[in-house]
Amino acid sequence: MSSVHNKLSIFALGGVGEIGKNMYVLQYEDDIIVIDCGSKFPDEDLPGIDLIVPDITYLLENRDKVRALILTHGHEDHIGGLPYIYKQLRMPIYGTKLTLGLVEGKLREANLLKEAELTVITPESDIQLGTVSVSFFKTNHSIPDCLGIVFQTNEGTVVHTGDFKFDLTPVSEEAADLHRMAEIGKNGVLALLSESTNAERVGFTPSERKVGVHLEEIMRKARQKVFIATFASNVHRLQQVIDAADSMNRKVALIGRSMVNVVTIAKELGYLQAREEIFIEPGDVHKYPADRVAVLCTGSQGEPMAALSRLARNNHRQVEVLRGDTVVISATPIPGNERNLSRTVDDLFKLGANVIYGPGSATGVHVSGHGSQEELKLMLHLMRPKYFIPIHGEYRMLHQHRLLAEAVGVDQDHIFIVENGDVVAFQNGEARLAGKVPSGRTLVDGLGIGDIGNIVLRDRRSLSQDGILIVIITINKSHGTILSGPDMVSRGFVYIRESEGLLEQANEVVVASIAKFQEDNMKQWRLLKQLVKENLGKFLYERTKRRPMILPIIVEV
Amino acid sequence: MSSVHNKLSIFALGGVGEIGKNMYVLQYEDDIIVIDCGSKFPDEDLPGIDLIVPDITYLLENRDKVRALILTHGHEDHIGGLPYIYKQLRMPIYGTKLTLGLVEGKLREANLLKEAELTVITPESDIQLGTVSVSFFKTNHSIPDCLGIVFQTNEGTVVHTGDFKFDLTPVSEEAADLHRMAEIGKNGVLALLSESTNAERVGFTPSERKVGVHLEEIMRKARQKVFIATFASNVHRLQQVIDAADSMNRKVALIGRSMVNVVTIAKELGYLQAREEIFIEPGDVHKYPADRVAVLCTGSQGEPMAALSRLARNNHRQVEVLRGDTVVISATPIPGNERNLSRTVDDLFKLGANVIYGPGSATGVHVSGHGSQEELKLMLHLMRPKYFIPIHGEYRMLHQHRLLAEAVGVDQDHIFIVENGDVVAFQNGEARLAGKVPSGRTLVDGLGIGDIGNIVLRDRRSLSQDGILIVIITINKSHGTILSGPDMVSRGFVYIRESEGLLEQANEVVVASIAKFQEDNMKQWRLLKQLVKENLGKFLYERTKRRPMILPIIVEV
Repeated sequence: MSSVHNKLSIFALGGVGEIGKNMYVLQYEDDIIVIDCGSKFPDEDLPGIDLIVPDITYLLENRDKVRALILTHGHEDHIGGLPYIYKQLRMPIYGTKLTLGLVEGKLREANLLKEAELTVITPESDIQLGTVSVSFFKTNHSIPDCLGIVFQTNEGTVVHTGDFKFDLTPVSEEAADLHRMAEIGKNGVLALLSESTNAERVGFTPSERKVGVHLEEIMRKARQKVFIATFASNVHRLQQVIDAADSMNRKVALIGRSMVNVVTIAKELGYLQAREEIFIEPGDVHKYPADRVAVLCTGSQGEPMAALSRLARNNHRQVEVLRGDTVVISATPIPGNERNLSRTVDDLFKLGANVIYGPGSATGVHVSGHGSQEELKLMLHLMRPKYFIPIHGEYRMLHQHRLLAEAVGVDQDHIFIVENGDVVAFQNGEARLAGKVPSGRTLVDGLGIGDIGNIVLRDRRSLSQDGILIVIITINKSHGTILSGPDMVSRGFVYIRESEGLLEQANEVVVASIAKFQEDNMKQWRLLKQLVKENLGKFLYERTKRRPMILPIIVEV
Repeated sequence: MSSVHNKLSIFALGGVGEIGKNMYVLQYEDDIIVIDCGSKFPDEDLPGIDLIVPDITYLLENRDKVRALILTHGHEDHIGGLPYIYKQLRMPIYGTKLTLGLVEGKLREANLLKEAELTVITPESDIQLGTVSVSFFKTNHSIPDCLGIVFQTNEGTVVHTGDFKFDLTPVSEEAADLHRMAEIGKNGVLALLSESTNAERVGFTPSERKVGVHLEEIMRKARQKVFIATFASNVHRLQQVIDAADSMNRKVALIGRSMVNVVTIAKELGYLQAREEIFIEPGDVHKYPADRVAVLCTGSQGEPMAALSRLARNNHRQVEVLRGDTVVISATPIPGNERNLSRTVDDLFKLGANVIYGPGSATGVHVSGHGSQEELKLMLHLMRPKYFIPIHGEYRMLHQHRLLAEAVGVDQDHIFIVENGDVVAFQNGEARLAGKVPSGRTLVDGLGIGDIGNIVLRDRRSLSQDGILIVIITINKSHGTILSGPDMVSRGFVYIRESEGLLEQANEVVVASIAKFQEDNMKQWRLLKQLVKENLGKFLYERTKRRPMILPIIVEV
C-alpha cells in the first residue's frame, strides 16, 4: 500500500458509520495531519475484548509524512486510542491545555510521556504543518476547551468541527465563537466535516446552565445526602454541582477514580473553581450531618464496577446510601447501557433512596453536549461549505445530517456520506470519491494490540454458546494402536453429575468411530479427528439440540 | 417443601422484579389457581441459553391442589412457558378464544395438544375452581381478547388486572369494561394485583386508533412500496394496516413466520376482518406496481433473523427494499434491542429507503399497549382495594406504581412490593408477608429444561472472555513417569501462528512445573494439575494480561 496520490485527500480511519474511535486524516500532497485518536468499547459480539482503536496501517506506511496529531477535545472517543497508537506512530501531538492535561495522564501510565512531544494550542493559535496552515475556533461541548479546526491548503479551506453545541449561556467559559466561524465561512470553505451525533434530534440542545438550576433546587429540598452521578470529564457539570453544594452549604466528597483524577487536573489547570475547604474525604462523610453533604460520583452509565453501582449494591467501603437520601443520575445512558443503569436505579430504590433519573428533558438534570438539528443547520449556514462530509455518527445520523445540509442549500451532489477508509479527493475545487485506504478496527485484549483475529473471536463466541467437549485418544506412535481413551472432559456444556448417561453414550460413539476408523484401515489421524467430530456432533445435537465445540486431541506416545 | 398453610395466599413465581415470565399463584386452602405461564429471553449474562421459564417446584410439589391455569392473554411473556411447564404439570387451561388459539399452536408443536384440556372463557364467564369462584372483566391491550380476573374467596375478593390500558376508542373491539370494574370495586376488593409496565410514564397512553390515521397518511403519500414492521400479535395494528392498505388500494403481502401464523389464526377466529383478495404472496409482490403494495412483516425489534433485518440486508428471497420505498417501524425497541434495531434502520437507509422510526410519540406510528400513570390510577380508583400488590415490572416500576397507589389513597402499609416467591397471606381481612416458596429461573437450552446450572454458565462466560488452554500430560500408569507432553491446544485465546513464541515459553513453564513436581517427590496428580494451573496462569497473565481457562489433563497409559 502506498500513499494516496491526490493533491488533497480527506478520509476517516474511525468515526463514520459508528459512534467512537474517531480518527480523521487530511493529506495535502506529502503532508498528513491526523485529527483525533479515539477508542471505543466493544459490543457483546467481541467477547473478551477490552477496547477498539482505529487501524492505522495507512499512517504506519506513510509515517514519514505524518506531521501531527491534533486533538479536538479530551473525550475518550477522541483521545482514548492514544497510548496504543502513539507507541507505534510517535507523532507530535497538539491539543488545548485541558486536553493535553488528560493526555499526559494516559501517556504517563503507558510509560510514554517522557518521549512525547506535546504542544499546547488555543483558539487563537496559528500553526504551520508542512504546507498546511492550521487555525482553530472555539466551540462548546460537554468538556471544556474544545476546538474546531481550519485547514488552509492551496486547494482550499477545510473545516473540521470537532464535537460541538452552541451554548449561548455557557458555564464558566465563552460561548462558541460565532464571529470567527462567520469569518471563516465568509472567506470560503471548500469542505466541511461536521459531527452528526444528534442529527436525529429536533430543535436546539438546551444550555448547560439549565442543569445548574435544577441541581440547586434538588439540593435545597433534600433533607439528607445528595449523590450526583455524572461523567467525570463534564467539568462544567462538576462546577455546577460544586456551586450548588456550596450555595446550599453542603460539603462535597468525590468517589470514583476518574472523578478524583479529573477534578485534580481541572483544578490544577484552572478549569474548575472551588474553595479548597468545600471538599471532604469520602471517609469523612459520616462525620457531617446528612443535609450538609453532597457526593459527586462516577457510574452514571450503571457500569458494574463504578462508584454508583457499588453504592447501589451497598458495597462501598466508606459511604452508604441510606433511606431518604437523594440520588441524581445526571446523564443519559449510552445505547447498550440501559439495562445496567436500570439495575442500578432498581437497587437504589430498594435502599429507599429518592432517585432522579430518566430523560434529561423530563428531569432537567442533564443536557446533551451535542448540537441538535437547529445547531447543525446553524453550523452549515455559518460555514457555507461547497462540499459537506457528515462525520461522527452511525449511518442513520449521517443520513439525517445530509438531509439537514440539503435543507440549508448544500448541493445534493456535494454531500459525501463515507465509510471509514473512503478517500474524498479534491482537485481544482472539485471533489470525488477516490478509492479506499486500509481501515478497520484494531482490537485491544490485555497487552495484545491487534493480535486477536476472527478465528479467536469466532471460537470465543462458539465456546460461550454451548461450551467445549474435549476427547483425548492416546496412540502408540510406532504401532499406531490406541493405548488409552477416549477420555472426555467438558466445560460449559453440561453439568457432568447430571449427565453421566449422556457422556457414557458419547464415549460409545467415539469408541465406535475409532473402530470404524481401524476397520476401514484409515491411517491419517486427521481423518479420525474428523470422524469423531462428525459422529459426536451429530449424536449430541440429536440428544440435546446443543452444539458444543468438539475438540479431538490425539496424543502420540 | 410442603404447601403453604394460610387461608389465602398470593405469590408470584415470575413477573415481579423483572419484565417477563409472568406467573402468579392464588391459593385458597387446598385450591391452587395459576395465572399465566410466561417465558423471557435471556440477557447476555446467560450465554447459550434459549429461554427462561419460571421455576415451578412449588406447583409440582402441590400438583394435586392445582385446579387450573388461567391465561390473561396471548403474549409470549404470559404463555411462552406453556410447552415446558405443561409437560410437567398437565393442568387444565382456561383462556379466551384467541389466547387458546395461540396456545394450541404451541402445544401442537410440542406434541402436547391432544392430551391438553383447554376451556374457552369470555368476559362473561363464571367458573368455580374448587372453593374459588372466578369471573372476568374485559380490558384493552396490544393483543385482542385480554382479561382481568376476579377471584371470590371466603377471605374476600382478589383482582388480577392482566396487562391493560384504557382504550376509549379501540379498534374493532369493545373498550375496557369500566362499568363492570366499577361494580367489582363497589362490592369490595381485598387485594388488587395490577401491572406496572408503564408506571414510570406520565399521562394517558394514546388510543390504538391514533396509529391508523398516521398509517393511512403514510400510505397515501408513499409513491412506492410501504413496509410496516410490527409485532405479529398486535392484531389491532394488523387490522389498521390492512384497512389503510385497502383504502389506498394497496395489496398486502405478509412476511415472517409468526406474521403469517397470527394472521391465519386471527382471521379464522374472527379477530381480523379482511377481504380475501387483498392478500398476495410475497413472491408476487414484484408483479404489482410499487404504489399498489404494502408489506406487513416481523422484525420490528431488529431481531437479526426476522423478516425486516433480512430485507434490510437485502437478503430476502422474494422481496426487495428499493430506493424510494417507505419502511415504517411500528414498535418501540424493548430495552436491550436498541442496537439491533439501529443497525436495521442504518441498513434500510443505505438501501435508499425512507424509514419512519423513533419514539411513537414523535412518529405517531406506535402506541404502547400498557396504561400510563393516569390509567394505573384509574384502575386503582375503580377497584378501591384494601391491599395493593404491584406486579409485572422491574423494581423501579413497582416502586413508582406504589407511589401512584399512595397518591390515590391506598394505605402505605397496605402496599406490598414483593419478590418472586414472597408469599402474601390473608386472614380475617389482614395481610402479612408469610415466608417464601421456591422460585427462580429455569433455563431452557436446546432440549434441556433446567439442567444448565451456575457452574456451566460460569464456564461459558469465562470461556467467552479469554478462551481455553488445554495442557495434556501423558504418564505411565505403573511407573508414574511422564511419557509425553506437555501438549498444548488452545481455542479462543491467541492465534497460534502469531504467538508461537508465547506458547513455547508456556510449554517451558509446564515442563518446569513437572520437574518441580517430581523433584519434590509429590505423588498426587491433582497437585501437579494445581501447580500447572498456577504457574501457567501467572505466566500468561504477566505476559498477556489475559486469563484463559487453563485445563490440565493427565492421561494415564
